[in-house]
Amino acid sequence: MTGGDRFDEVVSAVRERVDPAEEERRRLQRTAATLVAEAEAVIDDLDVDADVLQVGSTARETWVSGDRDIDIFVRFDTSLTRAELERYGLQVGNRVLPDGREEYAEHPYVSGQRDGFDVDLVPCYRVDAATEIRSSVDRTPFHDRYLSARLTPKTAGDVRLFKQFLKGIRAYGSDLKTRGFSGYLTELLVLEYGGFEAVLDAASAWQPPVRLDPEEHGSTTFDDPLVVIDPTDPDRNVAAVVDAKNVARLQHYAREFLAEPSVDRCFPDDFDPLTEADIRNHLERRATTPLAIRFDPPDVVDDQLYPQLRRSLQGLRTGLEQQGFEILRSTVFADRTAVLFLELTVATRPDVERHEGPPVHVEEHARGFLEKYADSAVYGPFIDGDRYVVERERSITAAREFVETGLLDVALGAQVETALEDGYDVLEGAAVTALVPEFGGALARYFEPMP
Amino acid sequence: MTGGDRFDEVVSAVRERVDPAEEERRRLQRTAATLVAEAEAVIDDLDVDADVLQVGSTARETWVSGDRDIDIFVRFDTSLTRAELERYGLQVGNRVLPDGREEYAEHPYVSGQRDGFDVDLVPCYRVDAATEIRSSVDRTPFHDRYLSARLTPKTAGDVRLFKQFLKGIRAYGSDLKTRGFSGYLTELLVLEYGGFEAVLDAASAWQPPVRLDPEEHGSTTFDDPLVVIDPTDPDRNVAAVVDAKNVARLQHYAREFLAEPSVDRCFPDDFDPLTEADIRNHLERRATTPLAIRFDPPDVVDDQLYPQLRRSLQGLRTGLEQQGFEILRSTVFADRTAVLFLELTVATRPDVERHEGPPVHVEEHARGFLEKYADSAVYGPFIDGDRYVVERERSITAAREFVETGLLDVALGAQVETALEDGYDVLEGAAVTALVPEFGGALARYFEPMP
Repeated sequence: MTGGDRFDEVVSAVRERVDPAEEERRRLQRTAATLVAEAEAVIDDLDVDADVLQVGSTARETWVSGDRDIDIFVRFDTSLTRAELERYGLQVGNRVLPDGREEYAEHPYVSGQRDGFDVDLVPCYRVDAATEIRSSVDRTPFHDRYLSARLTPKTAGDVRLFKQFLKGIRAYGSDLKTRGFSGYLTELLVLEYGGFEAVLDAASAWQPPVRLDPEEHGSTTFDDPLVVIDPTDPDRNVAAVVDAKNVARLQHYAREFLAEPSVDRCFPDDFDPLTEADIRNHLERRATTPLAIRFDPPDVVDDQLYPQLRRSLQGLRTGLEQQGFEILRSTVFADRTAVLFLELTVATRPDVERHEGPPVHVEEHARGFLEKYADSAVYGPFIDGDRYVVERERSITAAREFVETGLLDVALGAQVETALEDGYDVLEGAAVTALVPEFGGALARYFEPMP
Repeated sequence: MTGGDRFDEVVSAVRERVDPAEEERRRLQRTAATLVAEAEAVIDDLDVDADVLQVGSTARETWVSGDRDIDIFVRFDTSLTRAELERYGLQVGNRVLPDGREEYAEHPYVSGQRDGFDVDLVPCYRVDAATEIRSSVDRTPFHDRYLSARLTPKTAGDVRLFKQFLKGIRAYGSDLKTRGFSGYLTELLVLEYGGFEAVLDAASAWQPPVRLDPEEHGSTTFDDPLVVIDPTDPDRNVAAVVDAKNVARLQHYAREFLAEPSVDRCFPDDFDPLTEADIRNHLERRATTPLAIRFDPPDVVDDQLYPQLRRSLQGLRTGLEQQGFEILRSTVFADRTAVLFLELTVATRPDVERHEGPPVHVEEHARGFLEKYADSAVYGPFIDGDRYVVERERSITAAREFVETGLLDVALGAQVETALEDGYDVLEGAAVTALVPEFGGALARYFEPMP
């Protein structure tokens, strides 16, 4: 299948915007070379066994114009203790980037600026194989070597194109908020299929679970919709973080783009934030009961926050459903505040609830049930089919009441739980319009959903 | 296990009321003998090959005082055609009971009065075995012969006691309104276990499905909670009509009666009819939404009406549940009018409903779904997990609306459907108090449920 003239035209227009200009590339590589040389000089000075290398998309010419992070890795010998590695790593970083700040991922590293570029200076161990890494940053040089040996100017250009396409469809990024496609995964897919259009063709026809193994060395099975065995580590799925929804989204938009290529699809407008009036209109049109729990989020990075918010939302959904409330859709928002947002189709319950007892023939249990409910049931015990049944008084008849009194009893993310213990607001119905100033855009994404 | 003094005392008091007085029995047997002789005389006169016998509980001394039906069967030779049998049968009936009226079950028969007793004069075929019957009435003489050969004055007395007990717990009668224990079944159970108390002991410990086979000749399996193989027909379950609820009810009350014998349990007061105020109190306490469909019932006997009402109720329940409405309990009432009565816990739905499409990867279906909903969905299509989803406008948002517009589209009993086509009232909420004059007692049984 070939996209045709219109496809080529659109792709050219996108390339125009994603391919870094010659001048930008030269400046970046010059700066990177200087940084490497400076880091090497510090290592000499410290007399420690290490080497320096530029890695990442800017090292491989696969960065999208504007995303100009320079990643410099300092690889230390494995004879160093972790404490030594961290100390030397920060020394190199601080001397190369005296105005930088120390950041913490798996190791501490130094992040700063040089010539207008964002620079990360990251210490890692120089291990013999990607399967022997001590922390995930040790893997990066192997990925870099693998890709650098295989990418050509053409495929690197197609990586840039595919990355932009994924950004356009909100599926780019392996952070745990997005759960999309990482840069490395993007590059492997382009290499695997041969180019941008070939990736779209292939993705259009995927029948998940999809398993790709470029080096044909994987033996582990994974329970993910997309499995791409890491060429540098047979036991790792590069696409493990990719949510089923993002696989489906790529399939949907790949088909759409092949059928109707569009520059705008790669550079979409932001969602127009909804106004309070917009929300009121939606609520009137839907006749559902929205419920928002707003609180001060714990002071953790997004990669820790979002999984906990989702776990908390799931816990709340389960709690509500066990009480007989019914949920149409739900989501989480986070910015200065965090929000668990649910839209209920059944938000109130009657004052009695059915409670089934044992079959009448199970005499021992039957006797216990009858004794228990002889006086405490509102109605019954009576017999339905072969069982005892009572109708009990409900303690909670409104979803809002459940949230106000029972939220801390459902399964919550640990730090979200602590944050909720400090208090939370419950907004119900039209009161959710109070979220507009902070979350108008997120509400647009919720109330005007797209694939 | 033995019931003890208190048990004996209560049983004696019940026997007092259920054992027919000597005078009543003598009068009845005299009348029956006269009827048999008169029928034989008519047969002689007609010169047809037939004999006459008294059958049923009054023939076996197992009738409960006050239930004084005399059943006289005229058994014709199998060489007669069915038309001949019916003609001769009515001739005998009309000459013996000149003031009687013709009734129609499987055959026509004559029903009338004599000396204050209700008399049925029923024609049947004289077949060689119960397995060769042409209609179910042909079986009766075999049942009669089997039981008469085995019942003693003691066991006959215990049958009367057990029948009264079953009446007291509302489980006596094999009509399709009650779906309880027939007279024949009651007698077989007393014979099987040896007496009234032994039946209660056994029933207390039943683990349904229970299978009894007095003649040890059954090979067919039945999917009923209680199976009693007919001693006169190995392929018939005498208890086929008994509802699981009535088996459970017998178990429950057998345990209760053994633990705490009570004359009142055998002769319970009628349910006090509820007043409109009672119903309003219940509804307030329950906070549910009752919905009653009232209509003129089809002109059929109860054994045809009740199964159809139940089937119609089930069809309506299914229809409502498919629309997302939720039902706590439901029942049917019938007297001059018929009622499908439901009590809803969810009686309204929002204006949108979730509708799941195909997984995105099923390209052919996915395309069809997208085309269908490109413009017609209220929200979406969007992706959830690996599927397309839309939120559609609901056509029906209230249970009442569903009943008013869609009742005739659900699975209904055939003659009930015809009756509903002529029109029906829908009563919702406190409006169901309008049922009180006709169904106050039935509503008491619903709103004050007992085992």
